Amino acid sequence: MSYYKDTKIIRYSHQGVEHTTDIVVEEYPLTLFLEGKEFVTLLCSPEDLEYLVTGFLLSEGFIKSSGDIGRLRIDEKKGVAEIELKGGSILAEKLYGSRTITSGCGRGPVFYNVKDSMDTMVLDKEHRKTEYQTIISLMREFDDRSEVFKKTGGVHSCALGLEGKIEVYHEDIGRHNAMDKVLGHSVQKGLDFDRCVVLASGRISSEMLIKAARRGIPIIASRSAPTVLAVQLAHKLNITLAGFARGRRFNVYSGFQRII
Amino acid sequence: MSYYKDTKIIRYSHQGVEHTTDIVVEEYPLTLFLEGKEFVTLLCSPEDLEYLVTGFLLSEGFIKSSGDIGRLRIDEKKGVAEIELKGGSILAEKLYGSRTITSGCGRGPVFYNVKDSMDTMVLDKEHRKTEYQTIISLMREFDDRSEVFKKTGGVHSCALGLEGKIEVYHEDIGRHNAMDKVLGHSVQKGLDFDRCVVLASGRISSEMLIKAARRGIPIIASRSAPTVLAVQLAHKLNITLAGFARGRRFNVYSGFQRII
Repeated sequence: MSYYKDTKIIRYSHQGVEHTTDIVVEEYPLTLFLEGKEFVTLLCSPEDLEYLVTGFLLSEGFIKSSGDIGRLRIDEKKGVAEIELKGGSILAEKLYGSRTITSGCGRGPVFYNVKDSMDTMVLDKEHRKTEYQTIISLMREFDDRSEVFKKTGGVHSCALGLEGKIEVYHEDIGRHNAMDKVLGHSVQKGLDFDRCVVLASGRISSEMLIKAARRGIPIIASRSAPTVLAVQLAHKLNITLAGFARGRRFNVYSGFQRII
Repeated sequence: MSYYKDTKIIRYSHQGVEHTTDIVVEEYPLTLFLEGKEFVTLLCSPEDLEYLVTGFLLSEGFIKSSGDIGRLRIDEKKGVAEIELKGGSILAEKLYGSRTITSGCGRGPVFYNVKDSMDTMVLDKEHRKTEYQTIISLMREFDDRSEVFKKTGGVHSCALGLEGKIEVYHEDIGRHNAMDKVLGHSVQKGLDFDRCVVLASGRISSEMLIKAARRGIPIIASRSAPTVLAVQLAHKLNITLAGFARGRRFNVYSGFQRII
């Protein structure tokens, strides 16, 4: 497998509209089964998966050395890694148990939880069009507000734009947290999501896309790159995904019909 | 609370050594209890926590609108959010159950799992010193190899340097994955971690620091910023943490004695 993929895009700039291709980074779900039990899905780049699994097991304290792994079988096509530890199921049971008790769950691969209900998330309405200039001026206002990022270089920002103006804006060290703060605030304000644009500073991965889709937001624009998986989902869910929105230009990866 | 904090650092450059302060971004653990049950810890920026919790519950499908929250009590000092949903424990039980079954665990806050065993991770040996020039040339080699990042703007890189040369190098869309690939590969190669330097392109958060600490690696150098929590842990664990390693300069946040 490869780290990235050529993807058809439309590039908007003050010089006009260009149909071209862009190199987009892959996002690959690898589900780990420990002693036959599914226990975590990693969203990763699809290379060096054996090292990833070994390193993950070491970092999470499931093994002390690579010699503790009895058997590791990776099915790249299915996105599955089957692990058996030496010392067998008793150790795994104990470790698995302790992990469950401490609730060491992070920001999960929301994708898998919503896979079944994805059909209900498709935007079938042909929401109103949004002008090139609206996206550009929203991103300009967005950039102006990213104060913490400028100070420390360590924070992601996210915002919700409505009628060409930013209505809600938040920052956080986590991309997902910044988006959740914006969504939580917007829901409390009672904003009309299907007329909104999400603006983000960070990468648009599948999880970010699904957060917006769950709320029925038709357009996402990011200063950074999307992943292939996010682009595929955006096509499926009929969401307009724009990336590299900087200065007077951006790339559109899906939902082309909404930008005029 | 504030997004960031002034921190004492030593800045190394070709012009010499400067004792100064740097603004470092906060990383705050907020543990969510749903109907009295601990279920997730978010590592976030310590502001707008009510919006974060609301947005997280929406995004993860625990609630459909903010009206579904019966009670939300946030104890900023303890880092705890207590949530009660309307419809009560039956709904929560059902949702909590389904979450557990689908194993929607991401890259967890390793911190909390290892808190108890943290004393054993302190580097009490006064490892050999590393020269300013070694870090600079390692970072130069590291930058030269970051090909995928240059192409797509979407990938983090991580490497292990030994004796002034990069021994293991990996890339991934996730910072944690890139580090785990490097650690997994290095363990299989049998590298002597206590003579190594970890190089990273992305932010050094508490989780990244703990991954290195677990393997006994004394020096971490990143192109990006660390968090306050990572700096605090680095002091406690006697790890040398360098950030903003770019061109011929870097900042050191802890473990100053190892750099000459």
